[in-house]
Amino acid sequence: MKSPLAPPTRLLLGPGPSPIDPSVLDALSKPVLGHLDPEFITIMNETSERLRTVFRTRNPLTFPVSGTGSAGMETALDNLLEPGDRIVIGVNGVFGGRMADAAARAGAEVTTVEADWGDIIDPEELGKAVRSVKPRVVALVHAETSTGARSPVDLVRREIGPGPLLVVDSVTGLGGIPLEVDKWGIDVCFSGTQKCLSVPPGLAPITFSPRAAQAVADRKTPVQSWYLDVSMLRKYWEEGEGARAYHHTAPISMVYGLWEGLRLVLEEGLEERWARHQEVGEFAQQELTGMGFKLYARRGYRLPQLTSIRLPKGVNDNLRARLLTDFDIEIGGGLGAGAGKVWRIGLMGFGAKKENVIRLVQALRAII
Amino acid sequence: MKSPLAPPTRLLLGPGPSPIDPSVLDALSKPVLGHLDPEFITIMNETSERLRTVFRTRNPLTFPVSGTGSAGMETALDNLLEPGDRIVIGVNGVFGGRMADAAARAGAEVTTVEADWGDIIDPEELGKAVRSVKPRVVALVHAETSTGARSPVDLVRREIGPGPLLVVDSVTGLGGIPLEVDKWGIDVCFSGTQKCLSVPPGLAPITFSPRAAQAVADRKTPVQSWYLDVSMLRKYWEEGEGARAYHHTAPISMVYGLWEGLRLVLEEGLEERWARHQEVGEFAQQELTGMGFKLYARRGYRLPQLTSIRLPKGVNDNLRARLLTDFDIEIGGGLGAGAGKVWRIGLMGFGAKKENVIRLVQALRAII
Repeated sequence: MKSPLAPPTRLLLGPGPSPIDPSVLDALSKPVLGHLDPEFITIMNETSERLRTVFRTRNPLTFPVSGTGSAGMETALDNLLEPGDRIVIGVNGVFGGRMADAAARAGAEVTTVEADWGDIIDPEELGKAVRSVKPRVVALVHAETSTGARSPVDLVRREIGPGPLLVVDSVTGLGGIPLEVDKWGIDVCFSGTQKCLSVPPGLAPITFSPRAAQAVADRKTPVQSWYLDVSMLRKYWEEGEGARAYHHTAPISMVYGLWEGLRLVLEEGLEERWARHQEVGEFAQQELTGMGFKLYARRGYRLPQLTSIRLPKGVNDNLRARLLTDFDIEIGGGLGAGAGKVWRIGLMGFGAKKENVIRLVQALRAII
Repeated sequence: MKSPLAPPTRLLLGPGPSPIDPSVLDALSKPVLGHLDPEFITIMNETSERLRTVFRTRNPLTFPVSGTGSAGMETALDNLLEPGDRIVIGVNGVFGGRMADAAARAGAEVTTVEADWGDIIDPEELGKAVRSVKPRVVALVHAETSTGARSPVDLVRREIGPGPLLVVDSVTGLGGIPLEVDKWGIDVCFSGTQKCLSVPPGLAPITFSPRAAQAVADRKTPVQSWYLDVSMLRKYWEEGEGARAYHHTAPISMVYGLWEGLRLVLEEGLEERWARHQEVGEFAQQELTGMGFKLYARRGYRLPQLTSIRLPKGVNDNLRARLLTDFDIEIGGGLGAGAGKVWRIGLMGFGAKKENVIRLVQALRAII
């Protein structure tokens, strides 16, 4: 009955996966239902409804993609873009660059609006690019996991005007910092489960505005991915006549975990959760700068849930391995331009607690 | 600590998900590790090695794709096919048709070799098509989940010659019936976790022969899917210099479940497991024909783990709902051409037990 699998218990303070509440792990181990069982359909409906609440949207087409956050990204871009479509993408870190890569693979003409790593995407720059390029889609990253910068997505729609479809990567944002899909005029927003929702990796919550859903329905060419084709996925996830048509076998246990993780978010209260992340993140940034670390992301635009620190002289990146083996604490190394130069410290979801900050700071003091 | 999620316990005798051993559910709830944690990398290595054993291959590039079986299909086709490439696909049910759809989306010129539903793909017909079309890739379904037919994949390589890359969908085959990736000359074989491996849905085990891996490396165009691009995925999954490069955050808990599910397969013995499926499936087919049901798949080529039966006059498809609500037994309805006309009964993995056949037959007698 018990598996001999015995992974150690780590304190996950990297860029994700984040620590998981025991009740979410418990949900994962519940009896598996069939993907068309009426009892599972109830769980699907509740999951979608909870996702609407945390996305702050009334979009009917809101569901978890059966893959990790990057599958959510590809679902957004592959479904909105047809070959030859123009897209403007803000790139200020790895995940903006990843969207540019995926959009080009979908056959789009990609224009990037770039900013230094650690800096933000300036909505005015996006607006300028839109007036010049006249794209079908604008995309940017809300919370750049590679740098810890928070771009002011709330100001983007005003700058780009009503025309372009707006795609937002909030993989690291959802459930941790304010995100208002409807109020901010976002057409497609995607996320991941393993960040501020504190659910294991494996699903990508996504929401499509009615306009975005219509754009998918009006396509002239098929979506290049069969697996991520929203015109078929919606027949499985949406309610109504002809609904619940089999497409692929949903990852039942992962949906259970998300259902429970979202329940915990709503039990805490979304705004209370945002406030907790803010408070714990500020505390961490204060403690870390107090130790002499310099913060990587631009002042005034720092994510509380993901803090990048520059490594000072004499502090080698491979000290992270000692933190892991001697203290059972995981933090993240730098990605791309930050590789070997920064550490990334996540205080997300169930892990966003001051006691975790203190445990980390004490361990850092011991090894540096 | 406990989640209020309370799904009922069903006896899953449909086309998958199949019943899960409690130790696999236990593995799902183990503490989550980071996707670059050395302890997780050990689990990855063990998982790949176990997959090699059940696939009967020595292919280094053997790993679970972070999506369900259909994502495995798309990984196979998207990575091998470039726009304009020719592919010959055997279609004798839903899943062959799905491959033809996905291959066309990848820009390939698709030639189908068709057989009646319930019948098999004749290797000689594939051979004829290959001589006429001269395709880069040949693809067929080993175990057609929509009909219950087993195509003689072991004879295919002889008929198609050494040239074409051979792709085999063994979503419902792996771990349930003989499959010999190396001996049969298969280049890419993909599967799913929720059939004869008895792990919840969410991962797609896949293996690439060295020749197929080289074909991916030699591509002239990028793989259209960023998420499923094997040239990047292999850097995360394979061992050696520069290995374990971050691509996407692996679905840790699902990998735990697969690790444990494969451990149980090897504990039982792969050939013993094949024999158990054969014995239980034959028993079920005997009992069901004894009740007057006619079997849908062609005699001599029936899968033991998935039996399709024709509904006789007076037996309505919606009796399945009563089986579910009154007896907590799930069986599957027909797909595509079989919708409303057949039932699909799965006896897979942990569920392949004679006592389950008896429980089903008694329930069927009670409601018909």
